[in-house]
Amino acid sequence: MKNWILLAAALPAFAQPVTYERLLDAAKEPGNWLTYSGNYAGHRHSPLNQINEGNVKNLRPLWTYQVNSLQKFEATPIVADGIMYLAEAPSNVTALDTRTGRPLWRYRRTMPDDLRVCCGNVNRGVAVLGDMVYFGTLDAHIVALDAKTGAVRWDTEVVKYQDGYSITVAPLALKDKIVIGVAGGEYGVRGLLDAYDAKTGKRAWRFWTIPGPGEPGHESWKGDSWKSGAGGTWVTGAFDPDTNLVYWGTGNPGPDWNGDVREGDNLYADCIIAVDADSGKLKWYFQFTPHDVHDWDATEVPVLVEGEVRGQKRKLVLFPNRNAFYYVLDRVSGEFLLGKAYAKQTWAKGLDDSGRPIRLPGTFPSIEGTKVWPSVAGANNWYSPTYSPKTGLLYVATREAGSVYYFGEAEYKVGERFDGGGFRAIPGDEEWGAVRAFEPTTGKVVWEHKLFSPPYSGLLSTAGNLVFGATNEGQFYALQADSGKLLYKFQTSGLIRSNPMSYLSDGKQHVAMALGNSLFVFGLE
Amino acid sequence: MKNWILLAAALPAFAQPVTYERLLDAAKEPGNWLTYSGNYAGHRHSPLNQINEGNVKNLRPLWTYQVNSLQKFEATPIVADGIMYLAEAPSNVTALDTRTGRPLWRYRRTMPDDLRVCCGNVNRGVAVLGDMVYFGTLDAHIVALDAKTGAVRWDTEVVKYQDGYSITVAPLALKDKIVIGVAGGEYGVRGLLDAYDAKTGKRAWRFWTIPGPGEPGHESWKGDSWKSGAGGTWVTGAFDPDTNLVYWGTGNPGPDWNGDVREGDNLYADCIIAVDADSGKLKWYFQFTPHDVHDWDATEVPVLVEGEVRGQKRKLVLFPNRNAFYYVLDRVSGEFLLGKAYAKQTWAKGLDDSGRPIRLPGTFPSIEGTKVWPSVAGANNWYSPTYSPKTGLLYVATREAGSVYYFGEAEYKVGERFDGGGFRAIPGDEEWGAVRAFEPTTGKVVWEHKLFSPPYSGLLSTAGNLVFGATNEGQFYALQADSGKLLYKFQTSGLIRSNPMSYLSDGKQHVAMALGNSLFVFGLE
Repeated sequence: MKNWILLAAALPAFAQPVTYERLLDAAKEPGNWLTYSGNYAGHRHSPLNQINEGNVKNLRPLWTYQVNSLQKFEATPIVADGIMYLAEAPSNVTALDTRTGRPLWRYRRTMPDDLRVCCGNVNRGVAVLGDMVYFGTLDAHIVALDAKTGAVRWDTEVVKYQDGYSITVAPLALKDKIVIGVAGGEYGVRGLLDAYDAKTGKRAWRFWTIPGPGEPGHESWKGDSWKSGAGGTWVTGAFDPDTNLVYWGTGNPGPDWNGDVREGDNLYADCIIAVDADSGKLKWYFQFTPHDVHDWDATEVPVLVEGEVRGQKRKLVLFPNRNAFYYVLDRVSGEFLLGKAYAKQTWAKGLDDSGRPIRLPGTFPSIEGTKVWPSVAGANNWYSPTYSPKTGLLYVATREAGSVYYFGEAEYKVGERFDGGGFRAIPGDEEWGAVRAFEPTTGKVVWEHKLFSPPYSGLLSTAGNLVFGATNEGQFYALQADSGKLLYKFQTSGLIRSNPMSYLSDGKQHVAMALGNSLFVFGLE
Repeated sequence: MKNWILLAAALPAFAQPVTYERLLDAAKEPGNWLTYSGNYAGHRHSPLNQINEGNVKNLRPLWTYQVNSLQKFEATPIVADGIMYLAEAPSNVTALDTRTGRPLWRYRRTMPDDLRVCCGNVNRGVAVLGDMVYFGTLDAHIVALDAKTGAVRWDTEVVKYQDGYSITVAPLALKDKIVIGVAGGEYGVRGLLDAYDAKTGKRAWRFWTIPGPGEPGHESWKGDSWKSGAGGTWVTGAFDPDTNLVYWGTGNPGPDWNGDVREGDNLYADCIIAVDADSGKLKWYFQFTPHDVHDWDATEVPVLVEGEVRGQKRKLVLFPNRNAFYYVLDRVSGEFLLGKAYAKQTWAKGLDDSGRPIRLPGTFPSIEGTKVWPSVAGANNWYSPTYSPKTGLLYVATREAGSVYYFGEAEYKVGERFDGGGFRAIPGDEEWGAVRAFEPTTGKVVWEHKLFSPPYSGLLSTAGNLVFGATNEGQFYALQADSGKLLYKFQTSGLIRSNPMSYLSDGKQHVAMALGNSLFVFGLE
């Protein structure tokens, strides 16, 4: 027995399997970053504080990893025991030594030339469980690789990409399953959320985000419109082991801007859905934008916190939505607790007591174009917010912009674009952005750090009283978490579409972020 | 008068014209980097010493500029008075603020889709003179831009790109002229070196590197083979105002590997030519590889130094050639003074008293393939060596590799590839590389810093007793100039094909180098 322990200790660090228990207790090993958001609660928070408000001015790049692609580089790296697992466009994975950036193995997938992707050949990251690395592909497969070698362990087709699907989301590993969603909202797919057996790749459950005949919610679609109802699931959700629920945001209904062909609320598009982790059965849902005609996917990251609302301790889910409203829900029941606008919006008078928006007239897309705030990209988007248990604040990179929305014809054909209109920027509109710190239960803005233009990158908070992020002008930055003061910046000039994360390498804290076409790893020396 | 002086001082720094006098006295303003090699002598040396052997361990990236291209990024930036002028693939130029990396203007050229380029859509840099920025294009034009705005001041066709030409070289500005060469050796062009009037873009002179009927050297070509004799001029040469000569290396004869169709020495391919700066007339030449059949372009950077040879002070030109021999010539007369192998070579017994190689039998390309050292990419290549006046040493990033060379048919057709064979790596050959420090007049190696694989990047020496360079594994490094000791490294993971340079920004020394698809700017803080 003793010999066995010694042998195990002598194994390379990456020989340690990433068990479900480790994922559950991610906070106990802040040196790793084991899931897309760093923990199941979607906090994107690092308890590390070696890099802190006092020394962040000395931050510097330690190494970079350049990807051989001009596609948007959206991935969050996963770090486990000294190895970084990085997804690259279009559907590739590289394992890197966190100390040096040296590649250990590479998985390179050949892509068909008739992919259906609305918005770039992107991939937002991998999941790890046991001794395997999991990720989705643009040709709509889920693939498991050997974490030590990159060899394919299994490869399962989720759906036919020819029907308009693609997979860009980072999967979520929990228990013995890998949960994964799909993209394809601009191709009129029927959305779904799947779980696969981690060992075999066999599908464990499927939840269709657009209910079929006889299912609750089906009545919210006119005629056959549910068949092309979209409701993608292309941003990684959260998980609460206590409720045993998976929380996941769903995308816009299809077609995007022509609601006439799909009269009704269009469930479960633009919702947060809470499904049982073992069965995939729907426990509750909340729809942010019924009958959406502005492409306001609710594909943001749900943030799970405990908090007191109206004098009562509750298990909450926070959701700064693309539609410019900030929502607080009870995550056990789905009950609407709070909703308020957090950025300029001109489409709703407000929310009623159930959280349903009270729409203003004249805000639907039109042939001649209708000006509405927020923009088609929303007041928030797929990039991550962060919650710091240390400051107790929720941080959101907020977008202040509007769009002109156009109505168009929409005829569904399998595997073809299904937009029903379009959009453009508002001429003369002074778009801008801000990092805003919110009191979670009230939505009150505690501070704001202005940005020159609407950002498209997420945030990381750390126990060093810092919030890291990046501007749309190519700058990586660090703010003081309790004040919003700018403490550090580094110009990369890249087009940044990603989220930061943090980990330890050889006992030293690093912060990593895909900045343009390079992953930058920052540290103090 | 006093008012005028005050006004001039208040002008933005970039309002100062870069006169020929400033280019001549480049050493007097080490804060700028005004020509491709930093001075006319091809030294690629910076007299700055803020960054030095004592503090280089604290070096860090200050900002990066990512190019929106996956082409090789080969350019040396030019810095004049706080502005950096950077050439990008395919034929673009960006002006950047050296303090922040913020773009001030961009010139973007639309390229035809039938370019003739052997080795990537690359550009090695711009020249500056007066208030203009000059560069060559892949469609074989020379273009002058307004240094303040990027507006086109003139645009002259050098040759027809459809004939197989392209321009990748950084031009050399001298007096009132811009000297520029061409690429196209793999397309059987007829090589030339041109000079253009800096103000008007009118051609001032042309030297054909392949002599026509009646011209000296014409007899070194069989029949009509001179017409497709190549001899490109795609790497920036040197200039000596005292001799009034421009020194420029010429490329391989065409076709590359089939010498049968071009019996003779094939002048002036694989030469260094010394032409009068005012007239373009040939003063002397020296041919390194007569009747080259291995693609050993002599397109390296000539390095001009003064030195004592056989007890006599001489004006010298140093030339570590792609053919694996190191040459010292008298740059007034072209007299051969020294030649010795500086890397593994198996093609010549040595050089005779005139510097002509004594070829070994069985080294020509063959149908079945012939193993020869050095490789087709040579023991050195287009990337820059550096000479440090401080240590008195010449530094060369040396390649230790061989190739299997193949003979093939060659029929010339205008604008089409004209190779006459090919090559591949030698199976099992343990390729490697080294930075070597040479005593210039003896060729004696003073130290060697081993590299894992043959490098493809040049060197910068500085007065801080440093030599900067980059490995083929993506690492930027600094060596101690007098010992070769590795003092600093930074992993970028990029495919590095470029040269470092140095300058001051706000009084602080920076070192910049294109590392993969990003320009990295390093400094101490």
